[in-house]
Amino acid sequence: MGSTWGNRIKISVFGESHGPAIGVVIDGLPAGISIDESHIVKEMGRRAPGTQAGSTPRKEPDLPTVLSGLYNGKTTGTPLAMEILNTNTHSSDYDGFTVTPRPGHADYTARLRYKMNNDPRGGGHFSGRLTAPVLFAGAIAKQVLKAKCGAEVYGHIIRIGKVNAPSWEEEEMPVIPTEGNFPQENPSLASRMTAEIEAAKLENDSVGGIVEVMATGFPGGIGSPMWDTVESNFAQLMFGVPAVKGVSFGSGFEVASRRGSQNNDHLLFKDGKLRMSTNHGGGFEGGISNGMPILAQVAFKPTPSIGAEQDTVDLDAKENVKIQIKGRHDACIVPRALPVAEGCLALALLDAYMAKGELA
Amino acid sequence: MGSTWGNRIKISVFGESHGPAIGVVIDGLPAGISIDESHIVKEMGRRAPGTQAGSTPRKEPDLPTVLSGLYNGKTTGTPLAMEILNTNTHSSDYDGFTVTPRPGHADYTARLRYKMNNDPRGGGHFSGRLTAPVLFAGAIAKQVLKAKCGAEVYGHIIRIGKVNAPSWEEEEMPVIPTEGNFPQENPSLASRMTAEIEAAKLENDSVGGIVEVMATGFPGGIGSPMWDTVESNFAQLMFGVPAVKGVSFGSGFEVASRRGSQNNDHLLFKDGKLRMSTNHGGGFEGGISNGMPILAQVAFKPTPSIGAEQDTVDLDAKENVKIQIKGRHDACIVPRALPVAEGCLALALLDAYMAKGELA
Amino acid sequence: MGSTWGNRIKISVFGESHGPAIGVVIDGLPAGISIDESHIVKEMGRRAPGTQAGSTPRKEPDLPTVLSGLYNGKTTGTPLAMEILNTNTHSSDYDGFTVTPRPGHADYTARLRYKMNNDPRGGGHFSGRLTAPVLFAGAIAKQVLKAKCGAEVYGHIIRIGKVNAPSWEEEEMPVIPTEGNFPQENPSLASRMTAEIEAAKLENDSVGGIVEVMATGFPGGIGSPMWDTVESNFAQLMFGVPAVKGVSFGSGFEVASRRGSQNNDHLLFKDGKLRMSTNHGGGFEGGISNGMPILAQVAFKPTPSIGAEQDTVDLDAKENVKIQIKGRHDACIVPRALPVAEGCLALALLDAYMAKGELA
Amino acid sequence: MGSTWGNRIKISVFGESHGPAIGVVIDGLPAGISIDESHIVKEMGRRAPGTQAGSTPRKEPDLPTVLSGLYNGKTTGTPLAMEILNTNTHSSDYDGFTVTPRPGHADYTARLRYKMNNDPRGGGHFSGRLTAPVLFAGAIAKQVLKAKCGAEVYGHIIRIGKVNAPSWEEEEMPVIPTEGNFPQENPSLASRMTAEIEAAKLENDSVGGIVEVMATGFPGGIGSPMWDTVESNFAQLMFGVPAVKGVSFGSGFEVASRRGSQNNDHLLFKDGKLRMSTNHGGGFEGGISNGMPILAQVAFKPTPSIGAEQDTVDLDAKENVKIQIKGRHDACIVPRALPVAEGCLALALLDAYMAKGELA
Repeated sequence: MGSTWGNRIKISVFGESHGPAIGVVIDGLPAGISIDESHIVKEMGRRAPGTQAGSTPRKEPDLPTVLSGLYNGKTTGTPLAMEILNTNTHSSDYDGFTVTPRPGHADYTARLRYKMNNDPRGGGHFSGRLTAPVLFAGAIAKQVLKAKCGAEVYGHIIRIGKVNAPSWEEEEMPVIPTEGNFPQENPSLASRMTAEIEAAKLENDSVGGIVEVMATGFPGGIGSPMWDTVESNFAQLMFGVPAVKGVSFGSGFEVASRRGSQNNDHLLFKDGKLRMSTNHGGGFEGGISNGMPILAQVAFKPTPSIGAEQDTVDLDAKENVKIQIKGRHDACIVPRALPVAEGCLALALLDAYMAKGELA
Repeated sequence: MGSTWGNRIKISVFGESHGPAIGVVIDGLPAGISIDESHIVKEMGRRAPGTQAGSTPRKEPDLPTVLSGLYNGKTTGTPLAMEILNTNTHSSDYDGFTVTPRPGHADYTARLRYKMNNDPRGGGHFSGRLTAPVLFAGAIAKQVLKAKCGAEVYGHIIRIGKVNAPSWEEEEMPVIPTEGNFPQENPSLASRMTAEIEAAKLENDSVGGIVEVMATGFPGGIGSPMWDTVESNFAQLMFGVPAVKGVSFGSGFEVASRRGSQNNDHLLFKDGKLRMSTNHGGGFEGGISNGMPILAQVAFKPTPSIGAEQDTVDLDAKENVKIQIKGRHDACIVPRALPVAEGCLALALLDAYMAKGELA
Repeated sequence: MGSTWGNRIKISVFGESHGPAIGVVIDGLPAGISIDESHIVKEMGRRAPGTQAGSTPRKEPDLPTVLSGLYNGKTTGTPLAMEILNTNTHSSDYDGFTVTPRPGHADYTARLRYKMNNDPRGGGHFSGRLTAPVLFAGAIAKQVLKAKCGAEVYGHIIRIGKVNAPSWEEEEMPVIPTEGNFPQENPSLASRMTAEIEAAKLENDSVGGIVEVMATGFPGGIGSPMWDTVESNFAQLMFGVPAVKGVSFGSGFEVASRRGSQNNDHLLFKDGKLRMSTNHGGGFEGGISNGMPILAQVAFKPTPSIGAEQDTVDLDAKENVKIQIKGRHDACIVPRALPVAEGCLALALLDAYMAKGELA
Repeated sequence: MGSTWGNRIKISVFGESHGPAIGVVIDGLPAGISIDESHIVKEMGRRAPGTQAGSTPRKEPDLPTVLSGLYNGKTTGTPLAMEILNTNTHSSDYDGFTVTPRPGHADYTARLRYKMNNDPRGGGHFSGRLTAPVLFAGAIAKQVLKAKCGAEVYGHIIRIGKVNAPSWEEEEMPVIPTEGNFPQENPSLASRMTAEIEAAKLENDSVGGIVEVMATGFPGGIGSPMWDTVESNFAQLMFGVPAVKGVSFGSGFEVASRRGSQNNDHLLFKDGKLRMSTNHGGGFEGGISNGMPILAQVAFKPTPSIGAEQDTVDLDAKENVKIQIKGRHDACIVPRALPVAEGCLALALLDAYMAKGELA
């Protein structure tokens, strides 16, 4: 029951990495929203492998086919279903991982959970490939959200390994890294980050990172305490991605080090408009949006598939063994994960925004 | 619809800080579990104000009255409802916050969300007081979880302001800070942390912190990808507490700085038992439990109510004004928040564990 | 997990018949709706025992106490909780039903379900008494629904035992049986129905019946196919009442006997307004409201508690035995059940109506 | 959000009648259940048009393609997705129904609900064709249910127009009408029923009916009061089918005419086994299963598409007009609807049964 998420907007994700297809059903979209399919394709392209520094050389066109829910280019209001056929799979690369689980992957836990009945090829339903349908849903949500309330979602990378970049905490309208193939607006930091990835790659290793996502134009007063808030729902969505180990909002874990006098966002009228003096809260007080930019950070662990020999076990022989993972892997998934995180924020915002009518 | 949480175990929290009562209905508990009410009272006492360094001098007995769901000392399996009568309220302390919202509180966002119909006294439904019913539900969950699978939940403080303490990342069975009135096992660090709180208090200020919660004895193979995992559900629960700004698991945000070769938890047989070499994943791979201790961190912002004069607005006059908050406040809520976080982990674990039968 | 219902409006019902209290938490109400408490009391009075033909002589004041969610006489938008203290219980009347279950009651199935841990006194959580909190929630829903869209809910009895009364299928605005103590508008039929009840009572027996509920003024275009419709949700609600064995809409089971040419509701403009020629569909096509009156029927079985000796078993001795039920019982619950059914319709309508904003 | 149903088993149905495809995602299935695809095809064939008396001459192969969730012929435990490509569509048959809605169809209500953005071709998402994915999910549920607890689901027709057949109320193990192409076990009644359909067809008309579904072998003690019962969930599922106007259990609406002394099911030991003397309750007391056969009835209205000229409106011209529906239609959908109702019962039973582990 775990691959279904949402309240007013429900998404139901399906598929295994090397099965016939992966996809998603999105239920609850408002009717009559024009969908720009080229935007969807562009968003999917941001996640596609082979286009970014350190990404796997696999070529996955990942072209989504819409099965329902669009008519004359607009949402019908009934479920929007999409599938991506799986091609170019090398299942033999994955033989044996049920017996000798790869460290850092779900091979062992999936075996336990499904009593060896899960599809292990390519990680099955636990594959990072399953973020493609999530991203698709997120790309739809971005368009619907913009059409309904004008809000837009952006993102950038704020850490790769040891290289940090500044948060957008102080920004009202950030410089968006739309150009180039690495989503960090500062060219010098982008270079250092890609170098960090290249260094890991050269050493048959991988590296983690942090993305930051932001929404501008999202109205205040949205969300319902305690657990139907954008914060709660975005966190729930993001932790559905196996590589995610942390989620925070506004100043995030940094708030723990502060005094209240430093951390409180103060209200003020500026040019006749109400706003906050700072955005340490990331756009929320009490879980309800306050009209400031929505700001969140998501930490991704380094790709567990690395070329070096690693320790693991043989679950049949019940002995400790070595494993060396072959195949094609990302040295860093963070650049490809960014549009997924943006899409998840759009989904959480849209889901919350849809309740606005309930309040009226 | 936001104050209801859960899948197999549902909790529905109600109440406003200065209304007649607060409480919770817990639906979906298994039948026949003996409940030790003295344990509940003890847990509630850990959150009660007035007993810990820097906490508000308000005296809230916070004694819960069970209205249903217990019979002959055992759970009936039908909804377990509890109420706490509100007494000792000083509502006049809160006059006017709908017009001149307190920085860092939900006064302004609640006004927007509810169009000025919310009960503003004491923060209403957004009050930290609403964590008492959550803690109650968590204390019940702790007992049920232990009875069903032997798992136990612990916690400690790992940061107050500038003072850090080590994580239990390397621990299989931590030293639990059960004695004394400050939940940090290292006396020297505990002293420095309480000093940090006292310093903030002396300056009419407040300070934030991080708690870490851990569960031992929780079996592997529990959870359903992608969004019905302990990670997703615990994060959703915790972000229901207004002061929480970050949630992480295992090594948390630290994973972003690491190489895969450093971060991967390796499988090994030790003394004939399967385990991981390290616990950077906090007990999960792919969101499914792996049999290692469950480990999570939660960041709390400093209490927004501070004694110093602050900037805010007069929403009627539409002008910038100053506000000075009177009344009784915590200089640091982190010690009182710890049992709430432990309870939330117990709830998330129990909710996931209840599905075990579905797999059989 | 079964005592929680709803989508946009969630109700969580708690309590056992002879426990400390019963009640309900209603989450998701819009803020700012004035609640007339005298209307609530009047509605509760319609269900209270001792006031209608054939009802039990027990006196239950059933006065609800609101614990949260109302402020200055209006809904706050945060959870509205209510409790009714249980008094005047004769628990000894129920001794032994766990071992020798009463026919037609849940004594045996509850024992199975909860492995003998349920509270058996007065039927515990399965008692008809638990319809009081449902009715309370329904009475709130009636007021909110009327305030939001002008719709009103009515009901009458259309069958008691062998006595039938005409449906409101042909009515746009029925004559409401508000006066008198028996909810059937035709005095002669009301007399025959009460005589049917009296006859059953005299013979230490009970009798069943059918209620019909109607809503006028509910707008068209509300509901979401396939399972978030008023039909689906009202049926789900009603079957939560143990005595309910059938639910239908419009012409109900009668449609099975008809030709399409007889049954189809035709569209027509009359006085410039669009309407249907008939209302066989009960106000729905495809589950979506069409602007006609909403019409539903609910069949209640005769009260299983009768004075005559009945066959049952001794589950300990594993032998067939006789049982004679003492205590105070209704010869017919149908008059008391009517306001519950009306309340359930109001809840289903309000829950659906709350989504209207999602469509905008 | 309406096309998603379920608690432990969630189904998400998508598709429009004349869009690219229809299908369903089933989330929450247990892992390791062998699925017999030939059984699925056979079940789908029972619903396929063109094979039964009075059904439309359209040929729809309706062959389902499984996209995920099966591996080596067994359920993986992760979402099982299925699609059916739409072919052989005559969309021009449906031109104009948005302006001149067909009586008895959702043309008008869908227009209202979706503000003219829905796909009107073939009824779009409201088409009876959408019962094919529901049936598919039901056929899977039948197999899983049988594998998990041995329960089996059957059904027959008990009314077509004016022709009635006896209920299985008195049967423990009914004679199943598996042979022949009309699902009624009594050949003489079957003939009269098919004649009733043929007569309607000859007159360019249609006719309604009632199906009865039964499950044998389902254990007692399953379900959670008040709203997580098989009764509540089956009713919710069935009312998702637009043609359904009534749902009942056991003796259904007949209970309203009875005395308690007639209606109560008495417990007795027979051959050492506990059972009920009768099955008026349809296998439930208090919503919880009692070990007797599960028995339910579902009333279907006559197909609204009939050949005769009918009254309707022109919504653009705002005037009353006549409509004559061309195209290919069923004179009676009841025979094709029966396997859908059986599948819905299997889904409701499986969903409830999956909670059994929660109780342990």
